[in-house]
Amino acid sequence: MRESDLLQHIYRRAGGSGWAEVVEVGPGDDTAVIRPPLAPRRVLITTDQLVEGRHYDPRTATADQIARKAIGRSLSDIAAMAGRPIACVAAAALGPAVADPDAIFDRMDHWAGVFGCPLVGGDIAATEGASVFTVTVLGSSHAVRGPVLRSGARPGDSVWVTGRFGGSLRSGRHLDVTPRLVEAAYLAETYGARLTSMIDVSDGLGRDAGRIAAASGVRIVMESARIRRWPDVSHWMEAARDGEDYELIFTLGSEAGVPPSVCPGTDTALACIGRVVAGSGCIIRDEAGNEHEASELGWDHET
Amino acid sequence: MRESDLLQHIYRRAGGSGWAEVVEVGPGDDTAVIRPPLAPRRVLITTDQLVEGRHYDPRTATADQIARKAIGRSLSDIAAMAGRPIACVAAAALGPAVADPDAIFDRMDHWAGVFGCPLVGGDIAATEGASVFTVTVLGSSHAVRGPVLRSGARPGDSVWVTGRFGGSLRSGRHLDVTPRLVEAAYLAETYGARLTSMIDVSDGLGRDAGRIAAASGVRIVMESARIRRWPDVSHWMEAARDGEDYELIFTLGSEAGVPPSVCPGTDTALACIGRVVAGSGCIIRDEAGNEHEASELGWDHET
Repeated sequence: MRESDLLQHIYRRAGGSGWAEVVEVGPGDDTAVIRPPLAPRRVLITTDQLVEGRHYDPRTATADQIARKAIGRSLSDIAAMAGRPIACVAAAALGPAVADPDAIFDRMDHWAGVFGCPLVGGDIAATEGASVFTVTVLGSSHAVRGPVLRSGARPGDSVWVTGRFGGSLRSGRHLDVTPRLVEAAYLAETYGARLTSMIDVSDGLGRDAGRIAAASGVRIVMESARIRRWPDVSHWMEAARDGEDYELIFTLGSEAGVPPSVCPGTDTALACIGRVVAGSGCIIRDEAGNEHEASELGWDHET
Repeated sequence: MRESDLLQHIYRRAGGSGWAEVVEVGPGDDTAVIRPPLAPRRVLITTDQLVEGRHYDPRTATADQIARKAIGRSLSDIAAMAGRPIACVAAAALGPAVADPDAIFDRMDHWAGVFGCPLVGGDIAATEGASVFTVTVLGSSHAVRGPVLRSGARPGDSVWVTGRFGGSLRSGRHLDVTPRLVEAAYLAETYGARLTSMIDVSDGLGRDAGRIAAASGVRIVMESARIRRWPDVSHWMEAARDGEDYELIFTLGSEAGVPPSVCPGTDTALACIGRVVAGSGCIIRDEAGNEHEASELGWDHET
């Protein structure tokens, strides 16, 4: 297939998605033209890649799953700032293993729409190697709270998470990303400045909690017994280590009160799993009282 | 090298680039946070890929050249809308052929700065195959003129280009992209609504002029003798066909007057090479009076 044919396929979809108020010019010109709602004073931008053979198995993942993960993991970063998506663009370097690029772009457009973030542009190139899908998302920060950074945790805060953890790659759950946009918006709306920090979990609960601790200059102490695991995850250490959960870790000031056990408007559990103290580092205390370096449990991407 | 080390290398550079007024949060959190200057009513976004072995030769291209081309060609799309860059993000899927990823990110940061567009975030992943660099640029449209689309050319307009054409891949000039941001801003500022359409030349002067004709519903007639060629380009057909020139094609209303032969503030030539008439298609008339289908001269990316 020639690039112009494939881009024509994408262009045909433009404008038909009910985003006319936001998208002034969709795919088909040199850039997309966006009218940001409410002229946000702060714009969020994030880019993330999905690499064939690394982030999905081309022998088993469907076009729909590849598309959902590519869109979902970039939007998870917007959620981690308590942001609201405005629009996204997708670039694909397509290798020989991709049988139907149209289907992947169709499904990216679909999932972008489901998550409230119109797909407004793209680029396609051929590669002899592994396919790479790069999704860049533009968002606005919460109008009142502003962007929720990793660096705002303070001693005395409690540490919370959405959802359940562990076994994501093994079970295939990593392909069914649902970015926690609604949950993040609820938290920012409800707690404002008392929502002191937030991050999404891609590299593992332990490792990503460690990033909040490092960025905030504090120590985080979590209790292994409080970490909610999926039924197929037998040990808390897997839940803390496996990664690709795309849940949120957040900290709440001590004056915030106790959040509901399920986020309103969703079926996502909210659970307190630890606390912030003075010091540095991030540990998980098991039921025998032994302490484990949480940052060492996650995994790192070898490049 | 582990991803966290490489990202740390990038993070260390953040905030040191003199962009503090625009970049509230640079690399290192879940997303970058940007304060767009003047709260533009319209935001431009474009994404473009540079694929190893396809857009550059990994045996000969330096880190500086790879970086410049990756940044430059995305910014060329912002220029083609007469936009002003706000910020960019870069994603790299790094294959075994990349010896020094740090150097490429350093130079991307450098060239982004040179072109007035801070690099505010990124993503790194490993791949077994060809490296892919994806740069997404955020921009604002011209405050008065608005975005200059491909679709505004009208019968009676004249057709203009910046610079010279041809032999870009063969000579290596394709690696030394200078996006025509200054020239585009001059044109939008000077001609306003009389600057009726614009596109940048990536796939070939003939083919890209054809895109203006198609988008505008008009016919474009160019004169081969008026196309400025580089000294190493012997025939106008190469100049019209080769591509990767990253110059601008634009149309001016008949009431626009005659632009200067060199764009003020630059050494970039401006030349009238044809006119817009009623009808459809795009042709180049040679000195013998024969007409050639311009859109057939360019090249298409096989995917």
